[in-house]
Parts: sequence; C-alpha cells; structure tokens
Amino acid sequence: MADSKTSPPTAYEQPIVTVDIVLLTLKENELCAALLQRPRPPHLGEWTLPGGFVHTDTDEDALAAATRILKTKAGVESPYLEQLQTFASRHRDSRGWSVSIAHYALVPHQTLSAEGGDASPLKWRAVDSIRSLPFDHRDILRAAVDRVRSKTDYSSLPVHLMPPTFTLSELQKVYETLLDTELDKRSFRRRIEELDVVEPAPNPPATRGAHRPAQMYRLKRKASNAVATADRNLTR
Amino acid sequence: MADSKTSPPTAYEQPIVTVDIVLLTLKENELCAALLQRPRPPHLGEWTLPGGFVHTDTDEDALAAATRILKTKAGVESPYLEQLQTFASRHRDSRGWSVSIAHYALVPHQTLSAEGGDASPLKWRAVDSIRSLPFDHRDILRAAVDRVRSKTDYSSLPVHLMPPTFTLSELQKVYETLLDTELDKRSFRRRIEELDVVEPAPNPPATRGAHRPAQMYRLKRKASNAVATADRNLTR
Repeated sequence: MADSKTSPPTAYEQPIVTVDIVLLTLKENELCAALLQRPRPPHLGEWTLPGGFVHTDTDEDALAAATRILKTKAGVESPYLEQLQTFASRHRDSRGWSVSIAHYALVPHQTLSAEGGDASPLKWRAVDSIRSLPFDHRDILRAAVDRVRSKTDYSSLPVHLMPPTFTLSELQKVYETLLDTELDKRSFRRRIEELDVVEPAPNPPATRGAHRPAQMYRLKRKASNAVATADRNLTR
Repeated sequence: MADSKTSPPTAYEQPIVTVDIVLLTLKENELCAALLQRPRPPHLGEWTLPGGFVHTDTDEDALAAATRILKTKAGVESPYLEQLQTFASRHRDSRGWSVSIAHYALVPHQTLSAEGGDASPLKWRAVDSIRSLPFDHRDILRAAVDRVRSKTDYSSLPVHLMPPTFTLSELQKVYETLLDTELDKRSFRRRIEELDVVEPAPNPPATRGAHRPAQMYRLKRKASNAVATADRNLTR
C-alpha cells in the first residue's frame, strides 16, 4: 500500500485507538458486567472493562478487534456483539489523545459457566453496584446499560441473555428485570409473538406421573445474531 | 504527560483517525447531503463528505473536531450535531487502517442561504440520488439517512431542519417528506404537543384586510440542541 501514500496521513500526532467491551450477563436476576484486572500501567492491577489496542496487522475491522479481545482476554466466544458508541478525547487516558470504539456484548450466564468455569479471569459485578472504574469506563458502562434497557423496551434484544432453551415465563422475567417493572403476561406474549424470534423447542420426555412441563422455546436460527424491533414500547 | 507514559501505547502501527460528517438539510422537500471537493489525494478533486483528521493539539474530543471541521471546511456553525457510528477497518482508506468517527448534522436550509450564499464550497445533492462516493462514504451517508428517518418516526429530531419560525403544517410536511408517507393532521399535532419542543411564536402584525395568518411556532429554548422521544412510532 506504500504506493498509495501520496500524502502523509497527517502532520499531527495520531490518537491511540482501542476497543473496549461492556460484556453483560444476567446472574440471579441481576444485570452484571465483566471486569478484568489490568496487567500493566496505567491503572496496573485495577479492574476495568475488557479492552485492547486495535491490531492493525491482524484485525480486519473494529468488530473483529472486539471479537478477538473477548476471545483471548475474556475467554468468551460468539456472544451477541454490537458497536455502542465511540469515546474519544484528550482527557480519557493519561497516555494521550485516545479513541475507544466501545462495543457491548450479551452472553447467557449458562454459556459462561460451561466455558470458563473457575479458571475464568473475569469478575462479574452487578452493574448498579459499580460506583467507579478507571479511565472513563464507568461512562462507557452506563451508556451500554442505558442502551440495553432502552432497546429491551422495543426489541427482542434480551433473548441473547437466554440459555439454549427457556420458557416464556423465564423470558418475561428477564424483560421485567431489565425494565425494572412487571409486565402483563398476555401483552408480553403477544409482543414476543409479533417479534417472531423464538420457536417451540422439543420438550424433554415427561417423567411418569409428573405434571406436564411448560413449553420450552429456543431462538429461531435467523435471530441468532439479530434483533427484531417493535413499533411501540412494552412500557408506557 | 510524558511522565505517565509508563508503557508505550502500542508496538503496533496506529490507525489513522478522522471525523466525517453527514450534513443534511431539506431543500424543496428533498433531503440533501453536503459534499465537498477533496483538495488532495487520495481521491483528489472528487466530492466526499466533509471530514478531516483529529487535531490532537487543539480538539478536546471528537465532537469538538466535528464542530471545527464543519465550521472551517463547510462554513456551517452550530447545527444539530450528533455522533452516528464509527467506521473502522483496514480497507476503507488506501492510506492504511483507518477510523472514521462519523457524525451527522442537521441544518435549516434558510440558515445556509443566509450564511454561505454563493461563496459556499458545499454542493448539495438529494441523498437518494447519490449512487457512489469515495472511501466508504456512501455507507456512512446511508447509515445517517437511516438514522434520521427512523428517529423521525419516534422523536422531535426534524425540528432541527426548520427555520426560526414555522407553521405546524410546514412541520408536518417535513415529517411526511422524511417518512415518505402522509400523516393524519390530528394525531400529528397531538404527537408534537406530547413531545413538548415547540411553542407559539409572536405572529407578525396582520396586514389589513388579509386572512388571519396561521399560528407560527418556534423551538423551545430547552429543545435547541436536544431531541425528545415518544414511546411509539408515528407510523405503524
């Protein structure tokens, strides 16, 4: 590409470019974010959002960088992952003018337990209990939580927090936790049907004499990395 | 800040960091975007979105960079301005791995005519007529237009395209243009009232014998750089 460098990119010092990720899950009905301990200064030993520099030699784009960082640093593969917002200023990092292309990711708690177990380097903290974080990571966390909560009100986003199969009551409980309100069962079910993202899963064989189990649901294949939106909010 | 450089930012080549802006206005009932002719390679002489490098010495943050670029390169001051999305990849710029922190801005056509006149370097093109642009600028344009149209459906965003005073019929026409659909007058007016962003403006003195003029409205002061959102869409 040297031959296309007909003008030097800039006479100015270039900003540092990082990708930070707000990785969210639901544990015991609480929305939790993953923190990682910093292995180097600045903020050596403190807990921050998972993040890292863009590797211009191997990362195709920002999403690829986020995917790599989640996999190599947090041990998490193929979560629901989306760009959030970019935080870019002279003040957010002591090392100089810096850009964080922030992303957020959702992962079912059940997947995490299966993958990482006790060897995981992640510490999960209830988002509402996190009072401060190094850099501007609390602002990034807040923006992600606001985004997830507001999208919950008009979309299928929370399905990406569910285990492989679940009941509609369990899904409703997740919506209620994120929205911090109770929902009417009938209008919730009508909404989920309209969004068209879940389908009945084969139920496990009934145990003799047991009550008929609740119908289990699973994500439709087309919805596995997508979000369907409604034309009005669940809450008013 | 040298003393805080306890670790070198990175061993990797750093990406180029730019800010690009989709500047939109309504001209004769068409949504139009501003293009500028590139003064240097790559794409010398071609028309692109206004943009430029972050000036780490003078720009406080990305929004300040966008404001500076609009003012110095496009001659536009204090439009409604918001971050859109970041486009970051190895392929979007021939000069190397690059980041564009893309923004979008809305400006009333009347303001433009008053400010720039014929001396303006901007070329305005109807967004739907723009088939290709250098770099990935057509993708950025498309993302901005999609954002504006979808926000129009549930927010007060289009008020930032209006002149200082306007009638509710004129505002409805702007919504209808952006949504590409006709709206019911009564439900549109109820919506605007709910959003609480406009107020009656003093009408000019009536000309003797003329019909009573339509009530003029203006943006409320609190809404001058904000967007109010509704809990359901105007269209279904």
